[in-house]
Amino acid sequence: MCGVFGAWSPSGRKVLEDVYLGLYALQHRGQESAGVAWINREGGISSRKGMGLVHLALDQATLAAEQTSCAIGHVRYSTAGGSEISNAQPLTASTSRASLAVAHNGNITNALGIKLLLQNRGAIFHSGTDTEVILHLMAHQPHKEPIDALIDSLVRLRGAWSLAMLVGQNLVAARDPWGFRPLVIGKRDDVYYVSSETCALNLVGASVVREVAPGEVVTFGPDGMDCLPLPVEVKRHFACSFEYVYFARPDSVIDGRSVYQVRKTLGKKLALRSPCPEADLVTGMPDSGTIASLGYAEESAAPYEQTVVRNRYVGRTFIEPTRRVRELGVRIKLNPITEVLTGRKVVVVDDSIVRGTTCQRMISMIRDCGASQVHVRISSPPVRFPCYYGIDTPSRGELAAARMNLTQLGTEVGADSLAYLTEEDLVESIGLPRECICTACFSGNYMEGGEENEPEL
Amino acid sequence: MCGVFGAWSPSGRKVLEDVYLGLYALQHRGQESAGVAWINREGGISSRKGMGLVHLALDQATLAAEQTSCAIGHVRYSTAGGSEISNAQPLTASTSRASLAVAHNGNITNALGIKLLLQNRGAIFHSGTDTEVILHLMAHQPHKEPIDALIDSLVRLRGAWSLAMLVGQNLVAARDPWGFRPLVIGKRDDVYYVSSETCALNLVGASVVREVAPGEVVTFGPDGMDCLPLPVEVKRHFACSFEYVYFARPDSVIDGRSVYQVRKTLGKKLALRSPCPEADLVTGMPDSGTIASLGYAEESAAPYEQTVVRNRYVGRTFIEPTRRVRELGVRIKLNPITEVLTGRKVVVVDDSIVRGTTCQRMISMIRDCGASQVHVRISSPPVRFPCYYGIDTPSRGELAAARMNLTQLGTEVGADSLAYLTEEDLVESIGLPRECICTACFSGNYMEGGEENEPEL
Amino acid sequence: MCGVFGAWSPSGRKVLEDVYLGLYALQHRGQESAGVAWINREGGISSRKGMGLVHLALDQATLAAEQTSCAIGHVRYSTAGGSEISNAQPLTASTSRASLAVAHNGNITNALGIKLLLQNRGAIFHSGTDTEVILHLMAHQPHKEPIDALIDSLVRLRGAWSLAMLVGQNLVAARDPWGFRPLVIGKRDDVYYVSSETCALNLVGASVVREVAPGEVVTFGPDGMDCLPLPVEVKRHFACSFEYVYFARPDSVIDGRSVYQVRKTLGKKLALRSPCPEADLVTGMPDSGTIASLGYAEESAAPYEQTVVRNRYVGRTFIEPTRRVRELGVRIKLNPITEVLTGRKVVVVDDSIVRGTTCQRMISMIRDCGASQVHVRISSPPVRFPCYYGIDTPSRGELAAARMNLTQLGTEVGADSLAYLTEEDLVESIGLPRECICTACFSGNYMEGGEENEPEL
Amino acid sequence: MCGVFGAWSPSGRKVLEDVYLGLYALQHRGQESAGVAWINREGGISSRKGMGLVHLALDQATLAAEQTSCAIGHVRYSTAGGSEISNAQPLTASTSRASLAVAHNGNITNALGIKLLLQNRGAIFHSGTDTEVILHLMAHQPHKEPIDALIDSLVRLRGAWSLAMLVGQNLVAARDPWGFRPLVIGKRDDVYYVSSETCALNLVGASVVREVAPGEVVTFGPDGMDCLPLPVEVKRHFACSFEYVYFARPDSVIDGRSVYQVRKTLGKKLALRSPCPEADLVTGMPDSGTIASLGYAEESAAPYEQTVVRNRYVGRTFIEPTRRVRELGVRIKLNPITEVLTGRKVVVVDDSIVRGTTCQRMISMIRDCGASQVHVRISSPPVRFPCYYGIDTPSRGELAAARMNLTQLGTEVGADSLAYLTEEDLVESIGLPRECICTACFSGNYMEGGEENEPEL
Repeated sequence: MCGVFGAWSPSGRKVLEDVYLGLYALQHRGQESAGVAWINREGGISSRKGMGLVHLALDQATLAAEQTSCAIGHVRYSTAGGSEISNAQPLTASTSRASLAVAHNGNITNALGIKLLLQNRGAIFHSGTDTEVILHLMAHQPHKEPIDALIDSLVRLRGAWSLAMLVGQNLVAARDPWGFRPLVIGKRDDVYYVSSETCALNLVGASVVREVAPGEVVTFGPDGMDCLPLPVEVKRHFACSFEYVYFARPDSVIDGRSVYQVRKTLGKKLALRSPCPEADLVTGMPDSGTIASLGYAEESAAPYEQTVVRNRYVGRTFIEPTRRVRELGVRIKLNPITEVLTGRKVVVVDDSIVRGTTCQRMISMIRDCGASQVHVRISSPPVRFPCYYGIDTPSRGELAAARMNLTQLGTEVGADSLAYLTEEDLVESIGLPRECICTACFSGNYMEGGEENEPEL
Repeated sequence: MCGVFGAWSPSGRKVLEDVYLGLYALQHRGQESAGVAWINREGGISSRKGMGLVHLALDQATLAAEQTSCAIGHVRYSTAGGSEISNAQPLTASTSRASLAVAHNGNITNALGIKLLLQNRGAIFHSGTDTEVILHLMAHQPHKEPIDALIDSLVRLRGAWSLAMLVGQNLVAARDPWGFRPLVIGKRDDVYYVSSETCALNLVGASVVREVAPGEVVTFGPDGMDCLPLPVEVKRHFACSFEYVYFARPDSVIDGRSVYQVRKTLGKKLALRSPCPEADLVTGMPDSGTIASLGYAEESAAPYEQTVVRNRYVGRTFIEPTRRVRELGVRIKLNPITEVLTGRKVVVVDDSIVRGTTCQRMISMIRDCGASQVHVRISSPPVRFPCYYGIDTPSRGELAAARMNLTQLGTEVGADSLAYLTEEDLVESIGLPRECICTACFSGNYMEGGEENEPEL
Repeated sequence: MCGVFGAWSPSGRKVLEDVYLGLYALQHRGQESAGVAWINREGGISSRKGMGLVHLALDQATLAAEQTSCAIGHVRYSTAGGSEISNAQPLTASTSRASLAVAHNGNITNALGIKLLLQNRGAIFHSGTDTEVILHLMAHQPHKEPIDALIDSLVRLRGAWSLAMLVGQNLVAARDPWGFRPLVIGKRDDVYYVSSETCALNLVGASVVREVAPGEVVTFGPDGMDCLPLPVEVKRHFACSFEYVYFARPDSVIDGRSVYQVRKTLGKKLALRSPCPEADLVTGMPDSGTIASLGYAEESAAPYEQTVVRNRYVGRTFIEPTRRVRELGVRIKLNPITEVLTGRKVVVVDDSIVRGTTCQRMISMIRDCGASQVHVRISSPPVRFPCYYGIDTPSRGELAAARMNLTQLGTEVGADSLAYLTEEDLVESIGLPRECICTACFSGNYMEGGEENEPEL
Repeated sequence: MCGVFGAWSPSGRKVLEDVYLGLYALQHRGQESAGVAWINREGGISSRKGMGLVHLALDQATLAAEQTSCAIGHVRYSTAGGSEISNAQPLTASTSRASLAVAHNGNITNALGIKLLLQNRGAIFHSGTDTEVILHLMAHQPHKEPIDALIDSLVRLRGAWSLAMLVGQNLVAARDPWGFRPLVIGKRDDVYYVSSETCALNLVGASVVREVAPGEVVTFGPDGMDCLPLPVEVKRHFACSFEYVYFARPDSVIDGRSVYQVRKTLGKKLALRSPCPEADLVTGMPDSGTIASLGYAEESAAPYEQTVVRNRYVGRTFIEPTRRVRELGVRIKLNPITEVLTGRKVVVVDDSIVRGTTCQRMISMIRDCGASQVHVRISSPPVRFPCYYGIDTPSRGELAAARMNLTQLGTEVGADSLAYLTEEDLVESIGLPRECICTACFSGNYMEGGEENEPEL
């Protein structure tokens, strides 16, 4: 779970502030660190990185003043490799042929093996990220043209990698042949952008050109824009369904499908598949279940109500976990509206249940406000398998739906009833061919047929 | 627009962290500065204040460790007197009889005259606030018991003042005889709380005891809890209607009325009074119009849709107003969902129109997304008069509804149609007797009958 | 122990950066806090204050840009009233007649009585300083012209007060009738300055005009420069001898006497009065004894040697007092040069012995390096009485020379011999008439004849 | 110009605070950045680095608490490679065989060639330092034992390198075969230390064991202490004479010679070689000329006087270079004592003249105070050649003594006379055999006979 963004202007316009703004729009994809890299006046690469949210990690005014027309940026979520500044991206390197910078969304599943191989050839790794293997693979082909070295490096990678890179004087966008994570090209006047999601293109005022195709490398530079296919054959695509269900911003469009519309459809299908007769009201788990709950309410007879108020000034980390705060629990962030809940039969819609603890606390809070019944409806199938392609899910043992059956889970979270959407409904709601969608976290159907192949890194 | 909070434990429990948490729940009432004051181990008063949001202005861990069982806090909005730390509250003073601290929500309309009088007697004012006159009035009665000096000071004040104070060893809550701003008492185990709103009582796990009555002074201290009436006769009350319309948090309850329910009712009455036939969807201005729009949608045939996504990481101040940012405008904070809006006839509900600029920008953005018609519905009467009782409204000349008639205003903001709620509907929705509600900002009916009496300060 | 500085330009030149630089030159007079106040564009008074050294407490660039031609500043040493920002000076106040700011060096000995009187008239004190009584005395005479109110206030004060003030549109310099602390006027082009010491005038490139006379009030403002005598008769003056011995910077000139030359003379007289035959070398206690030790060496046969190296990057507070640091002791700051000390008979000169602990540690360190004998010579008489006029000396019980006789003290600090200068030699070295010099800390001869009169505050 | 420090305890004592304190004592060798690295509980290497002085760059309390018995540290001066945190040392790396950290004082003259070679084998360099080649040379020998790989790497280096390293579980000290920069071993109880200078050993309470010999590698680790000679033959040694003249702290002892005593001897020899008859006083350029001036005064008839006061609170960077500050010039830091200088014939002693500007400004300031004559004496030969071995001298074109002859230079700096010490006197004062001392910056006699061989990097 990360976000990447890049910008390039053939006419020399300053683009670094747009990269900052793009990251700001992609903030939901990662809050651990943020960074940018750009081609500086001397033709080399400069970078700035910091921990935390974009506006804390980077100084907008400084970046806005920077004279560069080719830049990339990254927001990082994953705690893999530890929450250290040395793992913040973009990673940069100077090789004898070119300066490099890379921003990566996804997870390279064979990175560990490659790393050991390179270390035995003298490579010194400076981060704990899987991403760094790309730089070393390129550096170990010093006699090739940098773009050729890049392509020869990428073909060796398995797993998920949507990349925004600086290679010499070029901006490069690349996407793995399986198409796990989204990556889209935008344009505004003469400036080209690449972004993990369309919402960031909207923010900078750019219109969508097209998606980067799975297995495609697109370069933007002194010789203009160029599209190169990776020489890799794949049997099918694996577009991540969880982006639609939860991860992407609702105002984004992925593969031509509005995330907002998909989520409302998920809610409607859920109401048809698992109705809740005589419910007094439908509400969403804040904020992840809101849109699906609007769809559920629209399809059912019961009205939608906002039943919980989120303190909109809440940050992620600033409330100290003192004894008193733990005692007060979830109310620190969320306050239920008692007057709406007392004596009512309530349907609560959420996108998914991972560990189950959040759901349990919410239901308990709603009951404390006097709700007579609480029925839980989930707008996706049960998450029973870990994701190896870039979503930060826990191991199987911690996944609530892997540990128990539906009835047990309903009891565990304290619901009067609990129902999930089917995988068929999910695929239909997204609207892409079934063989193009990755549902591994629901079905266990990984890239090459088995979970046992994956946990190499 | 400010928030006050206080806590007192007769058995010596530490309460300062609860005051911190209370302020955090009242953050929507003021983001300019935050402060706390408490009775320290020596029996004197200590205080901490800072600029900005509660978690930036104050250090939770330090306060949590403080051994005090009597404390108050304040969040400040108003820019009156300038955005300086010297204007942050609580204000404190040492007099020969007692240490004092005061946190004030409201606006004392005769403060300027009192200040001049006191200065001619040698008083040195240290802040630009109206609140400071309370401390000097008390200090100038050095031979009275502090609580008596307080009461003799309060009877000289006109306007709005809901106070949480420390007077010697006592916590004191006081409310002006007209009852402009809310002030409520709560309790949890043996700890008493006073708060501007019930949402803060909810956060600290306290239940509501009752409201502080208009013209009442409640003391909590070594002699227990005591209730003293101010010797002032008033003809009627002036409970602020704008608290219900916009200012209070929706999960608060004021005078027994759920703010959420009032807002939904406003939306329903608006739908009945000013329907919009054949609308495709109803949406709310984010976030001020959301609840009323749910009511409007429920009453009308059209479904509610969320049409704009707010970047939930957006802070109040951190995006630098660079040229590029001004160029991108409102999209920095809000992103419309094009797929929902294109070709649709849209009803947009908001709570009020003040200057009109925000409304205009939103409508323009919605039209840019391809909406075929945009109809604006406002869930309160037109704001045509400034508030002198603590809401930060601009002067008449800047109030859009005071400068032009409904048709002109509709054109100005770019609406296909524009409709307001009536004052009758507003009063009915709140559900209090008409003679208890202040509607001065809508009607110009100020406390003693005329706008010309007010602008003394 | 504080320092004051002020500047005024009749032609409107910016002077606030010069006040910053003046404070920087006076930094040795106080490191606890620093502050400035100036007449702003609106004719009122603005101020900035902070804790710690001048460059940490204040922002030079901001002050340099400020458009003001009348300003004062203060560095504070004393811990009286507690080390809090509310005690940092200049103190400011708005009265009905004028805005005021005051920076004070010295100690008002009857401040406590005045404070109680004023509190009984309704005054609210905001600091723990003796200085604040000046502002309240002025505010309580609201019907007088501000300068008249100032003079009527100053005549009521006893003790030591060298002041730089802003009164309305005027810079004011004032000095108590006894002349305890220095205060000098300087000029550069058309800009007038007032300063605690001449070293600060040197820094800003100003030449010395003259001292402010004891009991004189000098005003600089729209009507030019004016000199007013205070209507107070005094029997004699009390110029502080300790300024020459230790406190003032050696490059300053007080009452026409070079502090450097006085200190060298002290050392020479000490060598004549208490020689140390056959000493191998003379050295000074770093850094307080350096200059007197040069005088001692010059008068005796033995050469001066630098025997201890001070770590010149040492700050005042940054070495954490961990167990390890306490174990290493004085070497953290000072490193002796073993090669110079081994087997030598050493004379160590210092300005004074207060508690005796520093002296003891230094002698012990010198012995550890192999010195065969250590003879201590002090370039002033024994400090046996506390100072009530602004020098931060401990109580009698903590003064080493008050607790024991010379022989005992020599044994206590570990010296082979210990000798002091006489009061006669001190007075002669300074070169002022005996009846003009305060030697209270040596002799106990306080202003009006007795220690018992003083400790009111 | 850098400083290195290391510590190792076989019995598991915590040593990281001692490394902090050691760096603090070596602060004069570098103020640009500071860093430490240590073997952590998992057997890997952790590090902390920061810009600026030691106490700003590192947190003492955190380091004091760290459970490690093997650690190194570095203070950095050089601006080579740019003033960036990525150039701060110790540099660290994880290779397949061992974790590494290196702190380096000196300059590797053939680093550029090695770097290009390594880059062509795929190495990615992360800093702009010459030091990093050591890590890559080791990483490119992955099949050797780490200590063997280190030795095989070091023999390839030319120039100056005194190193403190962590290699696996060992502390390693190493010094180039020519012995350019000092490196000394100390011991306290069971803890061994390595340090650039003895003054840091003094601070931590350690006694000196011996110097690391030129061409020696000393390891401290699980197998105890071991000394390995590098298999390199050299014709002679090149101990830096400038360490004695200026760079080292006066309380240090290098190769058995007290730096303080050497500097006093330089001053005495200078007085014999270039006397100044009938001078009224001798003074030193603050602070670099002080000790030599004491020697000069002792040998001549004239007394030593302190003529200039340095503001002891002055930092390196905090005075903003505003117009006003530039106007005031050198007085911002240094204030002359007019009373001592007026009408006197003055001898000013300094250690060297590099660009000549400082000397010129000081002489001008002394003349402005009324000195009748100013005679300049330099306690080393003219600096006419750049240093390639770690002292930050400018290029020949900027060296004042390389651009003009003695008469011209005297005129340029404004001296009535100017005299230097001879190379013979310098060598004699140090007291080492001539063929062991590097005087390249005075004579141009570089390591292998010619300036033209050196500027490779």
